Amino acid sequence: MPKETIFAAELSWPDYDAYVRDGSVPILLPVGSMEQHGHHMPMNVDVLLPVEFARRVAGAIGALVAPPFTYGYKSHQKSGGGNHLPGTTSLDGATLVAALRDVIKEFARHGVRRICLVNGHFENSWFIVEGIDLALRELKWGGISDMKIVVLSYWDFVDKPTIARLYPNGFAGWDLEHGGVLETSLMLALYPHQVSLERAVDHAPASFPPYDVYPPKPEWTPVSGTLSSPKEASAEKGEILLQVCVEGIVGALNAEFPR
Amino acid sequence: MPKETIFAAELSWPDYDAYVRDGSVPILLPVGSMEQHGHHMPMNVDVLLPVEFARRVAGAIGALVAPPFTYGYKSHQKSGGGNHLPGTTSLDGATLVAALRDVIKEFARHGVRRICLVNGHFENSWFIVEGIDLALRELKWGGISDMKIVVLSYWDFVDKPTIARLYPNGFAGWDLEHGGVLETSLMLALYPHQVSLERAVDHAPASFPPYDVYPPKPEWTPVSGTLSSPKEASAEKGEILLQVCVEGIVGALNAEFPR
Amino acid sequence: MPKETIFAAELSWPDYDAYVRDGSVPILLPVGSMEQHGHHMPMNVDVLLPVEFARRVAGAIGALVAPPFTYGYKSHQKSGGGNHLPGTTSLDGATLVAALRDVIKEFARHGVRRICLVNGHFENSWFIVEGIDLALRELKWGGISDMKIVVLSYWDFVDKPTIARLYPNGFAGWDLEHGGVLETSLMLALYPHQVSLERAVDHAPASFPPYDVYPPKPEWTPVSGTLSSPKEASAEKGEILLQVCVEGIVGALNAEFPR
Amino acid sequence: MPKETIFAAELSWPDYDAYVRDGSVPILLPVGSMEQHGHHMPMNVDVLLPVEFARRVAGAIGALVAPPFTYGYKSHQKSGGGNHLPGTTSLDGATLVAALRDVIKEFARHGVRRICLVNGHFENSWFIVEGIDLALRELKWGGISDMKIVVLSYWDFVDKPTIARLYPNGFAGWDLEHGGVLETSLMLALYPHQVSLERAVDHAPASFPPYDVYPPKPEWTPVSGTLSSPKEASAEKGEILLQVCVEGIVGALNAEFPR
Amino acid sequence: MPKETIFAAELSWPDYDAYVRDGSVPILLPVGSMEQHGHHMPMNVDVLLPVEFARRVAGAIGALVAPPFTYGYKSHQKSGGGNHLPGTTSLDGATLVAALRDVIKEFARHGVRRICLVNGHFENSWFIVEGIDLALRELKWGGISDMKIVVLSYWDFVDKPTIARLYPNGFAGWDLEHGGVLETSLMLALYPHQVSLERAVDHAPASFPPYDVYPPKPEWTPVSGTLSSPKEASAEKGEILLQVCVEGIVGALNAEFPR
Amino acid sequence: MPKETIFAAELSWPDYDAYVRDGSVPILLPVGSMEQHGHHMPMNVDVLLPVEFARRVAGAIGALVAPPFTYGYKSHQKSGGGNHLPGTTSLDGATLVAALRDVIKEFARHGVRRICLVNGHFENSWFIVEGIDLALRELKWGGISDMKIVVLSYWDFVDKPTIARLYPNGFAGWDLEHGGVLETSLMLALYPHQVSLERAVDHAPASFPPYDVYPPKPEWTPVSGTLSSPKEASAEKGEILLQVCVEGIVGALNAEFPR
Repeated sequence: MPKETIFAAELSWPDYDAYVRDGSVPILLPVGSMEQHGHHMPMNVDVLLPVEFARRVAGAIGALVAPPFTYGYKSHQKSGGGNHLPGTTSLDGATLVAALRDVIKEFARHGVRRICLVNGHFENSWFIVEGIDLALRELKWGGISDMKIVVLSYWDFVDKPTIARLYPNGFAGWDLEHGGVLETSLMLALYPHQVSLERAVDHAPASFPPYDVYPPKPEWTPVSGTLSSPKEASAEKGEILLQVCVEGIVGALNAEFPR
Repeated sequence: MPKETIFAAELSWPDYDAYVRDGSVPILLPVGSMEQHGHHMPMNVDVLLPVEFARRVAGAIGALVAPPFTYGYKSHQKSGGGNHLPGTTSLDGATLVAALRDVIKEFARHGVRRICLVNGHFENSWFIVEGIDLALRELKWGGISDMKIVVLSYWDFVDKPTIARLYPNGFAGWDLEHGGVLETSLMLALYPHQVSLERAVDHAPASFPPYDVYPPKPEWTPVSGTLSSPKEASAEKGEILLQVCVEGIVGALNAEFPR
Repeated sequence: MPKETIFAAELSWPDYDAYVRDGSVPILLPVGSMEQHGHHMPMNVDVLLPVEFARRVAGAIGALVAPPFTYGYKSHQKSGGGNHLPGTTSLDGATLVAALRDVIKEFARHGVRRICLVNGHFENSWFIVEGIDLALRELKWGGISDMKIVVLSYWDFVDKPTIARLYPNGFAGWDLEHGGVLETSLMLALYPHQVSLERAVDHAPASFPPYDVYPPKPEWTPVSGTLSSPKEASAEKGEILLQVCVEGIVGALNAEFPR
Repeated sequence: MPKETIFAAELSWPDYDAYVRDGSVPILLPVGSMEQHGHHMPMNVDVLLPVEFARRVAGAIGALVAPPFTYGYKSHQKSGGGNHLPGTTSLDGATLVAALRDVIKEFARHGVRRICLVNGHFENSWFIVEGIDLALRELKWGGISDMKIVVLSYWDFVDKPTIARLYPNGFAGWDLEHGGVLETSLMLALYPHQVSLERAVDHAPASFPPYDVYPPKPEWTPVSGTLSSPKEASAEKGEILLQVCVEGIVGALNAEFPR
Repeated sequence: MPKETIFAAELSWPDYDAYVRDGSVPILLPVGSMEQHGHHMPMNVDVLLPVEFARRVAGAIGALVAPPFTYGYKSHQKSGGGNHLPGTTSLDGATLVAALRDVIKEFARHGVRRICLVNGHFENSWFIVEGIDLALRELKWGGISDMKIVVLSYWDFVDKPTIARLYPNGFAGWDLEHGGVLETSLMLALYPHQVSLERAVDHAPASFPPYDVYPPKPEWTPVSGTLSSPKEASAEKGEILLQVCVEGIVGALNAEFPR
Repeated sequence: MPKETIFAAELSWPDYDAYVRDGSVPILLPVGSMEQHGHHMPMNVDVLLPVEFARRVAGAIGALVAPPFTYGYKSHQKSGGGNHLPGTTSLDGATLVAALRDVIKEFARHGVRRICLVNGHFENSWFIVEGIDLALRELKWGGISDMKIVVLSYWDFVDKPTIARLYPNGFAGWDLEHGGVLETSLMLALYPHQVSLERAVDHAPASFPPYDVYPPKPEWTPVSGTLSSPKEASAEKGEILLQVCVEGIVGALNAEFPR
């Protein structure tokens, strides 16, 4: 049992208990999905990336990383291609809400008072909010009112200078980054053997009207499943993104969870 | 992207789609938990073991392995020490049921018609049953009635001769094997660096009356959190268990999912 | 109104109130099902038996018996033949959980602090656990944290010597006792006019592989619906079982609910 | 096993199956409650009465009686004294709805196409409606659209001439009959040993304003828990009520479920 | 921003806050439906009327009126024609219950301690009760136990003399007043341009047997959708009803919410 | 009854039925909230605006407007100030999802096959998506698979040139427009008597870090409750916004719901 691990579930319970029972050590919980990410990447991108961000941040701030949520909310056409696509495997909103509520309450039972949800899948966002709200409500009913929860999506820590540097030809917005330069560069930096850039399909960024249609109109989504081209992705860009985001998240958590 | 992977989420969607759309390739879905397993083992035993069984079996029968459920149902005092223990992090029954229902239905949408739930956590059992029942009911409402689902817990494939061989001094029953010889031997064979056998607490098998009490009586659970001693565990026993269970599961799935 | 009744619902509210308001008198709540029990027995076996056990035990320990749950969780193929069989009439897991939660909370509102769930239907087991967990959680939210709940299935009180005596040719396990010697003997001892032993189908114990399949494979269940033959059942065996189980349960409850 | 029983759960499954599989035999399902009924009556009045009505009607029309629901919806102050009273043991609305939905769908699975819910507890009424609506919706999703369900509360079959005869001094309305002349007379006719008329509290009918207040105002409910005096109750009146209601219900069901 | 408005949502938050934070000002919450009301009236009658009653009452007692619930529970055949009719647009029971629970809890969070639900749709009644019960339960868990909630349906304040005056030829009961003299007269008095009395269909009051059938039998409902004829409706009768009901409700709320 | 109304609930059922039964006429459903909007505006802005947009668009495309949802999802700190603020009155996510699901299904029962949800409250967005997904799923179970649903938030139709024109000093993003120039200008154009611009608080746009914290940190929200200053709002800007958005929405719906 590697005592230095920062993965909570790789600890024995006495070691975990020693860390968390006084409430000061934060738990970082990666929330991912199983979602298609184009021809050139696997479907676990939204798990691998927040887990790795959580791992790096945890090391820097003295936190533990909880087991990730391996399934997430339904893919939205304008940010993930749509939930009609093969391979994308999603939960109902109520299921994700309930799972988050349950797990947060369990960590609180252990003594944890600081949790950071590290989101890797855009569509999880609002259901994460609801899961937290229900958990805090029930914790309060149970007499616990000093829990503090931070929620973040790692890409929100990419600042404007970095965007300008990484997207010299213009940035289309985070929604259209599905399977695009951001995620592909990070995967190239971290898990290059899981990326087949030669299979990537080059295409103009998807262009959507200012409304949604249900059932989704398949013709709105590029046939590759990505919403912008990953062709400009590189491991170097991935390293930049890693550095910027990890620094940003570390700063945020040091501010919110002062030692 | 390693084309030979048998982990579904490590595939790109076109590769995954090619495998599953005609329904013949089974999906193996490991269902685990985050649960204390004594002083000598980490809390992800119930994830690591079914994932590894699924991986080996999938290789043998031409199946894919879905991302595991990393959290499971509440630990029961007489089979896992109880859900009051530190570190154990569990879902409400309804949450686990809903998550399974959702994921099964998504695989069915992809074309999958053969699913095997590989359970690694005893307490998940009945909620798995309910999740399947709800999924099949809703699939039928949606016009899909040819789904076949197998559920198994790997330890049920340990046959009597093997039990006699591994437990020369008598076998206390699978419930009491929590953190005991079975799980510890498997972990020693597969992930020896995650086991600290020297920290294991030797104790007589837990002895419970023929009823349950709620809230649990902490004094009923050995202070180590294990229900029987892991001291007799060994990597050799783990290899035997691996072989027996994999062979058994492969045989079962070949019978139920003939090619 | 028979003042001596131990059935709670046969009391007037002032009499009931006098019993329960200080919390010392236990409530025994039989949890049954409507389930096929072969050709030779009615479908209310799982209600009649726990009610009668509860009645006898209540008399011995000074408890009251609540109205039984007349419907239970879905029959499982390997312990009840399967929920596809005619006559078996079952609840979703969430329904049983909610009903138990509600009723436990109501008894707590009356002042009751000791409850014993007397289960007569194997498949109810885990949903009983969840119902209790939710009830205790909500009671705690409402400021009640001194409730103690015992759960038992009467057959778990049949000790090994009795098994040896009743099953001289070997005992197949409680799951296979569905409609077999245990239940039939108890019914012969208690309600002989409800048993038609001459209609019983003699067959070898059902033999199941170490996994489950859904939808159930009808051919796995003996056509009679029983999982082992009731032919060796007798009223005498039933009397032995009654005595052993009642004594066992009385002992357990005297220990857990000391006066 | 008494072949002549009309209680479905007292039949073996083959006998039950022979009755119901072609859909012509109706199932009568009594829906009761555990509710205080004053000082002079037990708390199972709302189970005993609909069961007995169902039994008599079933005999007349060739129907079967299902096991009763032994718990019902929360007592309302203006029709049952209020759910704050000791002894009253109620379900949340959603629980009752789910239980009815489940059981109706199970009977449909057996082949039943005619169900009559025989209500004995006023407050169940609207949740019965919702349970039926959900059951019919889901049955339709499953391809069954020929189910017919009748709902009745036995007291609605007491016609005006009978009211005039039984209440020579004026009739206060069915809501105020809680524990009053109607129920007490029926109990005296059917289960006289369960009534202690000498303990009955004589009081003017409860008088409520045209609105409700929550939490209930205890002072609005007569201290006895009854809403009108049972003093004028008699077994003779009970016999009249039995005759009138049974005839009425038999007529209704013969009309709705023609043979 | 009209400072004199009594509609809570027409206030700015500081003005609203000043009113409610000490808990003395009651909130009146109209609960309506979108339901067919015959050929001569629109489908928002059950919203317009309780909103107007609430507005008048609020002015008299110093209360605020919350935004109405614009959708309600399913129309019942014997009080609204049935939910199979075109235009009627209803919520599941659980949805209405949850919405009421949520909104009541939010008002409590603001400081409100006096709420009156002003119901305009008969079928909402029981689900309102359940919504209140769940809200009060959860508020108590959260430490708030001094909330007082009044529920009323405005027609229950029409006293017998008024009934005699308005229905000289006899009164059929409030259920049959669906789209009849009561509602039509009120609409004529308040919103005459929304009534087309010349399109009203004259018919004898609907006559129903003393039981319900599901699915509803369309032939039981008059083809107009009303359950009694509105032909005798008039603005004058509407004025009388307005006066009687407003006076009654004002009196009730002054009694329950003393200043 | 004004035959020319485009508000569905102001129609009689026969008139409504004539419009919708063949499925060609779209229903526009405004989804709002009761939410604080600063010192200078009422709390029904998110209802008034989508209702008015729906009214204008319906007139242009021949659609009907359904009764609005008057309550919505919880206010988010970074787009509405946070749900801890006085006056904001919100639903749980599951409640909003269920209400939308129910209402959509009811319209489908009437024959409607084209629905447009006109959202006025940013935080509703994802729960609208889930409500639609559940509705479409259940409709499909019931045999209806030709429903088409458009979802839009009116502000998404403000194009870049208009933004440049209205925000000459730079545009902070739609989230920060809570109670700012956009909403205030629209209210000034439409309901000037409901705006007290002199009470508006001028402040720099709120500035949030790239993550959320729960419970919300009150100090992050400007004390006025608005997220950007409304001082630059004007009726003229409101007219421009009305024109641009109505034209945009009309174009979108003519494209998606061709006549």
